[in-house]
Amino acid sequence: MKQITLALLATLTESSLVGDPEHSIQSVASLDEATLLDASFLSDSFLSKGRYTEALKKTKAGVIFVSPDTDTLPGKNYLITKTPSKAFQTIIKLLAKDQKYTGFDSNLNTTIHKTAKIDTSSSIGPNATIDENVSIGKNTYIGASVFIGPNSSIGDNCTIHPGVVIRENTIIEDRVIIQPNAVIGSCGFGYDTDENGQHNKIDQVGNVIVEEDVEIGANTAIDRARFSSTVIKKGTKIDNLIQIAHNCEIGPYNLLAAQTGVAGSTKTGSHVFCGGQVGILGHVEIEGKTMIATRSGVSKSLKSGTYRGSPAIPIDKYNRQKVYERKIESFIKKVQQLEDKIKLLEENNN
Amino acid sequence: MKQITLALLATLTESSLVGDPEHSIQSVASLDEATLLDASFLSDSFLSKGRYTEALKKTKAGVIFVSPDTDTLPGKNYLITKTPSKAFQTIIKLLAKDQKYTGFDSNLNTTIHKTAKIDTSSSIGPNATIDENVSIGKNTYIGASVFIGPNSSIGDNCTIHPGVVIRENTIIEDRVIIQPNAVIGSCGFGYDTDENGQHNKIDQVGNVIVEEDVEIGANTAIDRARFSSTVIKKGTKIDNLIQIAHNCEIGPYNLLAAQTGVAGSTKTGSHVFCGGQVGILGHVEIEGKTMIATRSGVSKSLKSGTYRGSPAIPIDKYNRQKVYERKIESFIKKVQQLEDKIKLLEENNN
Amino acid sequence: MKQITLALLATLTESSLVGDPEHSIQSVASLDEATLLDASFLSDSFLSKGRYTEALKKTKAGVIFVSPDTDTLPGKNYLITKTPSKAFQTIIKLLAKDQKYTGFDSNLNTTIHKTAKIDTSSSIGPNATIDENVSIGKNTYIGASVFIGPNSSIGDNCTIHPGVVIRENTIIEDRVIIQPNAVIGSCGFGYDTDENGQHNKIDQVGNVIVEEDVEIGANTAIDRARFSSTVIKKGTKIDNLIQIAHNCEIGPYNLLAAQTGVAGSTKTGSHVFCGGQVGILGHVEIEGKTMIATRSGVSKSLKSGTYRGSPAIPIDKYNRQKVYERKIESFIKKVQQLEDKIKLLEENNN
Repeated sequence: MKQITLALLATLTESSLVGDPEHSIQSVASLDEATLLDASFLSDSFLSKGRYTEALKKTKAGVIFVSPDTDTLPGKNYLITKTPSKAFQTIIKLLAKDQKYTGFDSNLNTTIHKTAKIDTSSSIGPNATIDENVSIGKNTYIGASVFIGPNSSIGDNCTIHPGVVIRENTIIEDRVIIQPNAVIGSCGFGYDTDENGQHNKIDQVGNVIVEEDVEIGANTAIDRARFSSTVIKKGTKIDNLIQIAHNCEIGPYNLLAAQTGVAGSTKTGSHVFCGGQVGILGHVEIEGKTMIATRSGVSKSLKSGTYRGSPAIPIDKYNRQKVYERKIESFIKKVQQLEDKIKLLEENNN
Repeated sequence: MKQITLALLATLTESSLVGDPEHSIQSVASLDEATLLDASFLSDSFLSKGRYTEALKKTKAGVIFVSPDTDTLPGKNYLITKTPSKAFQTIIKLLAKDQKYTGFDSNLNTTIHKTAKIDTSSSIGPNATIDENVSIGKNTYIGASVFIGPNSSIGDNCTIHPGVVIRENTIIEDRVIIQPNAVIGSCGFGYDTDENGQHNKIDQVGNVIVEEDVEIGANTAIDRARFSSTVIKKGTKIDNLIQIAHNCEIGPYNLLAAQTGVAGSTKTGSHVFCGGQVGILGHVEIEGKTMIATRSGVSKSLKSGTYRGSPAIPIDKYNRQKVYERKIESFIKKVQQLEDKIKLLEENNN
Repeated sequence: MKQITLALLATLTESSLVGDPEHSIQSVASLDEATLLDASFLSDSFLSKGRYTEALKKTKAGVIFVSPDTDTLPGKNYLITKTPSKAFQTIIKLLAKDQKYTGFDSNLNTTIHKTAKIDTSSSIGPNATIDENVSIGKNTYIGASVFIGPNSSIGDNCTIHPGVVIRENTIIEDRVIIQPNAVIGSCGFGYDTDENGQHNKIDQVGNVIVEEDVEIGANTAIDRARFSSTVIKKGTKIDNLIQIAHNCEIGPYNLLAAQTGVAGSTKTGSHVFCGGQVGILGHVEIEGKTMIATRSGVSKSLKSGTYRGSPAIPIDKYNRQKVYERKIESFIKKVQQLEDKIKLLEENNN
């Protein structure tokens, strides 16, 4: 078991130590689970002021990474840094047990088409299928039972986890991560309904382009375009169980949380953030720097801003509307009282 | 690169040309992305009148398929037809680059049980598993890493994309398409909770029947029946990431958009259309020709009609209710003014 | 075809027979589909009193399992028991056709790492990949094309259906069932956004622990913890297409219905029940014995109770609010009438 002193930790993470430089930690844990042998950290991103004060007071952690404006308590050890989350991550990497994806040598029990071009630095997992004219760049990991269809290309330094299906003609650029059982390049949902009410499939002959530094979550589905391309632009992160329909263009550096769905041909700008279970209608445009709260339903194009509700409206309007909705009961009662008073006034007037 | 003149295009698509018969196109694109070398088309299904007039004016497409009632502009080329989308699809097929699903010969690195009966015209992808007593019809494509469980049967001309799992005793009829990583025949979610609060699994010994011409989306799950069958009737199209629970009977020619969920034992009639992210409770019946708007929640049986909201109500009622909800703030303020006036009247009266 | 008399059925299920002991049944069916050759049963869990009386009257079933307080009708056969659902399940098992998961011998076309320890009583399906240092207990079934990552352990009597991906360092305890294409141990959705607006991946070095008697649905995704563990406690049942984010702790004996999502670090107590398509925000705590209605959105910690709506509120409050919302239209009209009356009163007063 690795051990590491707080003095060394401070050096490694460029933090300043308040406390005992000789104290050693062995592992990491959250504030409420940490023991004297654990490092922990305080992120104020999700906790209200009151809650984290309490957590800081109660924790038994051997040392806590905090930002400079945090009130420290006597008798505890702190490592002070402007970036507690990042510093904490350095420690995690140092102390974490080995997290390798596979122990197999490359190319064991794989099925690779003779026309496929795979850089020798890349590794293909067992029971994977690499089809005709596929190209795979350098230092890429392809997990077990992955399927990569004809004419698709995968860049350098990609991680394609087990069970992922990438259909024909897909382009995956460098440093893309795809979590298990995600599907890239499924057919878009398009039919012409004829005069007999039968739905005839519209061929989906386009493809999907996933730009560099994108991550795609487990069991997510990204449909190929009807023609041209469905595009996920660089640096965008897509969580689990998300639906991206055909011909969408998801802009750069978006964050889409789990179970969100985007209907066909919708475009988003740069740095659009969606909470979980959001739905966005087809053929709309979301301007850059738009934030859409969890479970919102977007039914039309949006300018930059923060939105909530279904249909989604600007969040201050949403909050005011909620305040008034909560008043409905009392106002309905008030109207009944006013009605009585008016009746009395009318009787007096006659 | 294929080239094709507008004169030839007109003949092939039975359209009438307005413009230059000698102009050639090489590819297809959407109105806003098209160049002089692209054909495009105008579908009015999703664009408002104003928006498409604008798109038509701005496009640089070499030719545009439009319906007879569209206003054409001088200096552009048009192919006029009653079915622009269908005509466009003809061109797509003509010009599209090869879109084959696999370049492998059939039966390479497959695991096929000796009792399975597979027509020689069908093709089984690498690392697929075909279990005991499975039968597969003519001209069917089974993708890589597909699993087909014991006693299941697959019809003629089916396309089962890579990673699909079809559990035991499933019946798939002719011309069914299943997108990657979909699951057919998973256990229904059924438990008896005993006096100790433990949930004991109720055996799910029924199966799933998928009738002819059905398409099922990527990562969709269709549970087997507790007993008897979960049925998807002919011609129905089910999008990605959809949940169909045990003992459902989804009627013919339904269209269910992505991330919709249908709880156990619910039945739908013919031509029921659901937008995305709809939820339908268990044990209800949806009459034929019912349309349910995106993100609606259906909590009881519905007669034919159009519904929206959660709980879903007739759409005209929904729209009226939304109008009144938007008036709440102003009416609460009005009630406060009326209160003041009444107070004044009361004082005057005394 | 098996046949079984009602006299024998009564004995086997410890029920008392009202009707013809010599009548034989061959199969089971729901009340509305049953013929004279079928047994059926009446569960009052989902049907209103009126509906089941009607179903009982109309059914053609050869015999019906009912609870002692059910009104029986002359000319029909009944088997009376306090546990109709359980008795019915006994019959299903007796009459069901063979439902085996695979007909293959174990270890055919598998890829098993030389360091893996697999009990000889367990069976590994074709094209499965068992990675370095994996351990698998007794009588466990691993389906085709399953991937089990390095250092993961699977207990005794587990059923891991085809296509499931279990990533590195996962712990699966005894009697766990995982439906096809589910993913256990995908990376949590965590990024640090830097000053250039780029999202840098936060390593997810924890794992997932799935305790005994848990069932996990098809295409469900359970993310590994950032550090420490995402935990699914014993006896909990998770339906299809569900998202459990990193560092969640789902308590014992929960029931989560399909397409529900739980964001990061949320904890639930014992016997929490969620309807389908529920969303629960991150970093909240749900007390034991809480019921959350279908499609609710939970945005803060909840005490034991029954909740509905988005944001979820106590169900009686929700119901009252809905009643008042439906009155809005009529009250807005009433306010307009009152306004007229006040105007008249004011004129009279001047």
